[in-house]
Amino acid sequence: MTESLSVDVVDLPLMWLRDNCPCSRCRDPRNGQKLFQITDLPAGLALGAVRQSADGGDGADGAAVEIDWAPDSHRSTYSARWLAANRPGADTCEGPGDRRGETGKTLWTAADLEGRIPEADWAAYLGDPAVRAQVLESVLALGFALLRDVPCREGQVLEAVESFGYVRETNYGRLFDVRVEPDPTNLAFTGARITPHTDNPYRDPVPTLQLLHCLSNAAVGGDSGLVDGFKAAALLREEDPGAFAVLARTPVPFRFSDSRTVLEADRPMIDVDGHGRIREVRFNNRSIATLRLPADQLDAFYLAYRTFAEITLRPALQLNFRLSPGDCLIFDNVRLLHARTAFEESGARHLQGAYADIDALAGTLAVLRRERAAAGGEFLDGLAALFEGEGAGVYLGEEVTMAQHMLQAAVRAEAAGAPDALVAAALLHDLGHFHGPVSGEELMTGTDNRHSHTGADRLAEWFGPEVTEPIRLHVAAKRYLCAVEPEYFGRLSEASVYTLKVQGGPMNPTEVAAYEKNPYAADGVAVRRWDDEAKDPEVTAPGFAHFRPMLAGLLRTA
Amino acid sequence: MTESLSVDVVDLPLMWLRDNCPCSRCRDPRNGQKLFQITDLPAGLALGAVRQSADGGDGADGAAVEIDWAPDSHRSTYSARWLAANRPGADTCEGPGDRRGETGKTLWTAADLEGRIPEADWAAYLGDPAVRAQVLESVLALGFALLRDVPCREGQVLEAVESFGYVRETNYGRLFDVRVEPDPTNLAFTGARITPHTDNPYRDPVPTLQLLHCLSNAAVGGDSGLVDGFKAAALLREEDPGAFAVLARTPVPFRFSDSRTVLEADRPMIDVDGHGRIREVRFNNRSIATLRLPADQLDAFYLAYRTFAEITLRPALQLNFRLSPGDCLIFDNVRLLHARTAFEESGARHLQGAYADIDALAGTLAVLRRERAAAGGEFLDGLAALFEGEGAGVYLGEEVTMAQHMLQAAVRAEAAGAPDALVAAALLHDLGHFHGPVSGEELMTGTDNRHSHTGADRLAEWFGPEVTEPIRLHVAAKRYLCAVEPEYFGRLSEASVYTLKVQGGPMNPTEVAAYEKNPYAADGVAVRRWDDEAKDPEVTAPGFAHFRPMLAGLLRTA
Repeated sequence: MTESLSVDVVDLPLMWLRDNCPCSRCRDPRNGQKLFQITDLPAGLALGAVRQSADGGDGADGAAVEIDWAPDSHRSTYSARWLAANRPGADTCEGPGDRRGETGKTLWTAADLEGRIPEADWAAYLGDPAVRAQVLESVLALGFALLRDVPCREGQVLEAVESFGYVRETNYGRLFDVRVEPDPTNLAFTGARITPHTDNPYRDPVPTLQLLHCLSNAAVGGDSGLVDGFKAAALLREEDPGAFAVLARTPVPFRFSDSRTVLEADRPMIDVDGHGRIREVRFNNRSIATLRLPADQLDAFYLAYRTFAEITLRPALQLNFRLSPGDCLIFDNVRLLHARTAFEESGARHLQGAYADIDALAGTLAVLRRERAAAGGEFLDGLAALFEGEGAGVYLGEEVTMAQHMLQAAVRAEAAGAPDALVAAALLHDLGHFHGPVSGEELMTGTDNRHSHTGADRLAEWFGPEVTEPIRLHVAAKRYLCAVEPEYFGRLSEASVYTLKVQGGPMNPTEVAAYEKNPYAADGVAVRRWDDEAKDPEVTAPGFAHFRPMLAGLLRTA
Repeated sequence: MTESLSVDVVDLPLMWLRDNCPCSRCRDPRNGQKLFQITDLPAGLALGAVRQSADGGDGADGAAVEIDWAPDSHRSTYSARWLAANRPGADTCEGPGDRRGETGKTLWTAADLEGRIPEADWAAYLGDPAVRAQVLESVLALGFALLRDVPCREGQVLEAVESFGYVRETNYGRLFDVRVEPDPTNLAFTGARITPHTDNPYRDPVPTLQLLHCLSNAAVGGDSGLVDGFKAAALLREEDPGAFAVLARTPVPFRFSDSRTVLEADRPMIDVDGHGRIREVRFNNRSIATLRLPADQLDAFYLAYRTFAEITLRPALQLNFRLSPGDCLIFDNVRLLHARTAFEESGARHLQGAYADIDALAGTLAVLRRERAAAGGEFLDGLAALFEGEGAGVYLGEEVTMAQHMLQAAVRAEAAGAPDALVAAALLHDLGHFHGPVSGEELMTGTDNRHSHTGADRLAEWFGPEVTEPIRLHVAAKRYLCAVEPEYFGRLSEASVYTLKVQGGPMNPTEVAAYEKNPYAADGVAVRRWDDEAKDPEVTAPGFAHFRPMLAGLLRTA
């Protein structure tokens, strides 16, 4: 037991620490559910013995702290890793936590997204978990995403919901048709212009998601608009904090009734959490019933309401687009305001809509990410196996193995203080040689002068261009350096001189100019130089395990 | 235009008044949806001409105020009735408004409901709108209701949901089975004791209703318990306001994950509205993940959490009962905590559960009430027709018509300062004579000495016992008065003397003693005296319309 560890634990809030005991008597290992009541903990909870342990407790390598609690003699073991990740400090905020509130969102104005509407093709969305994750993340972060080429058949919107969650059925049904009706009970079913609003503020809970699937849109008019209601509320807070406070505090009686339905909810237009952070926006002038407040509060409310309404109508806030048949818009109905321009009632415009909830969407994304993380772990396992297996036995006409060569390149990059992505590029620069039918001999005879591309393409599933592009360029960089640095050629190894020929020889001036235009040109050169220096039979670089955590941090999660 | 009306309008908040313009350009008459934006109102809104009008504007009788607005010349007409009902005053609270918050609820402890669990038979619930309304009102006010004799078949719980609303589907499906499972992913699916908790705090929005339908419960143990979480929170606020504030402010990371699901929500245990009123409670020790807060805030949170947990576990708060096969419990899952005792895993215990939302339930109740109010209007129309038709033509051996007789009795009651219910009893005391095959002649020959009961029974659908019981007693009261007041007999009319005989003559001492035990004995005597005095052919009482608003206020709404 080291003193520093003991002090570490003593400083921690004891109830919190004990409540997080990971032992199988305290938490169900299958689902993490806690198996005791907070009232089960002894009132005079105190630390008894505190020991450092070699066993990480959660199967992790590394240190752990073992605590015998007083007065009930329960024993808890916390891994040092868990303690490091969760240790409360003076500057601990509430963590990444609440993705429903404004701090979990990316607020936007129209200019931020003009020409960059988050969208994906329906088939790619269904077929590719990474695309699916991107779409769902856009709904969480930006409040919406647009699916394209969704089959134009009735009821299809329900399949869109079921791709990530569950339909919230209402008095409008599991789905609703938005088109001109002969005897409309709702303005939505006319050709009238509808200004930015959220749907169903008269429900409680309000459906947190809405989907609108366009089946036809041949009418003149009927364009769509979206406004980030969180942005509008944040602007109100900035420009008129008093008005923001009034709207966050005042329950508004939202109401809808028709021949079969009466719905009422008393909720503020801007719903904030216990720390005043924006969490939900309800904005729908059509459904506000008569407010019952003292006269002076009514005046204050109406001024604030009008000020907020003016902000929501600012053109700078409204992202405009037109739904085409096959488009399906998914949006956060307690954040985004949606609008449409008026349209000719004689024209064919038919959307089908459905409500759903964002918690299931977030859960689907979390599962995709968990699966992705598991796949990432498998990918790294595969790399480790290459370095330790195939790579450890292959010589490419050099005096070091392929694995040793790549590890040495990475060590050089690391020593040069290169950023993680470039160390990774150095480590993986010859990956294109692995796992293929290309032997070292074939390389020497010039049948694999594309290994840089093979490697980069193979890695693109897991790494961004800052890793893959220097790898893609590292062969071209050799031809480039031979053209611009005469002394470079003199330093090449025998094998490298040989392969230069099959790679096309030094670049001509046109090729040099083209190379220099590549944004990753310098990184490619850097990798090339470490590549050239990484062929020392006298050196033994650390193994793949040394670099694995760094690689894990670079993996594309979605 | 009278000065007082003008002053009345001038004092009102103008934006509020204009926003409530009921004209068909401002509001869609079909659904009450507002057809203009708050920003459409002119900035310098002011009253132009203000006139009193004879036309109530909304079709009501009575006065109205007509306003020509400046500067846009829009014309609004507000009925005096609407103004009276909605006029803001210094003491206006937020109205009956929010039925989701604590002010819309009846908080309870176990003793309040012991032996008085709100329950109804499934067949009566389905068949009788009044029973259905009572059940739904119980869920709103008390947080739960118990349906008995619900058919014991799988999937039936979904029919129970569909009787008032819509199923909230989750990763557990449209319904879920609560029984012992071989490889449980949730403590619910074991035989373990489960302390009071709300379900699914890791969802956002949390399903606001839960239904549990008991298919079998032959296991030893497995009794149910309910705790009013609003009551527990209110006690916490009373006993430890600081702890209440901490729990209302601190987002708690609730989390659930299994092999197919990851759900997370950061929400406070006690959710309050902008005025600090309790609106939702989430309490589930099993699902609390690691809180990330500064150390001192963790200490404060854990103390508050433990204090609240101790309150939820007070036996005085927990209503205990046992679900029998066919019982279906409907409860508010963001208010009530539910619990169960441990049970023998070998015993047969099988519940099916489903989630739903309370807004649709409240909407169904509102529609039932609207239908009930419409039926009440029709009932009053029917009474009016009796007074003006049949009743105006029938003489029961007296010199006044039946209608005039009953109206005179009501006038006497009113003049005596009797409460509304007793005025209504006087007005309707002879209703049993109407609408039946009994003519005045038959009455005189003694074939209808039960008209008091006939009338009371007929009225019981719409009035409480304070109206029906004095009517039921008014014949017995005559026999009673003849026994105890010798001079009373002397004042009887000729016809009344005759009918006394067929009614059984003066009471004997045993009958007198029995009569005096009836809690409505005095009211019966009062109605009797007004009855006797209401036969003056020289008097013309005001018509039924005079009494109608008073009767409308007495109608049982559900």
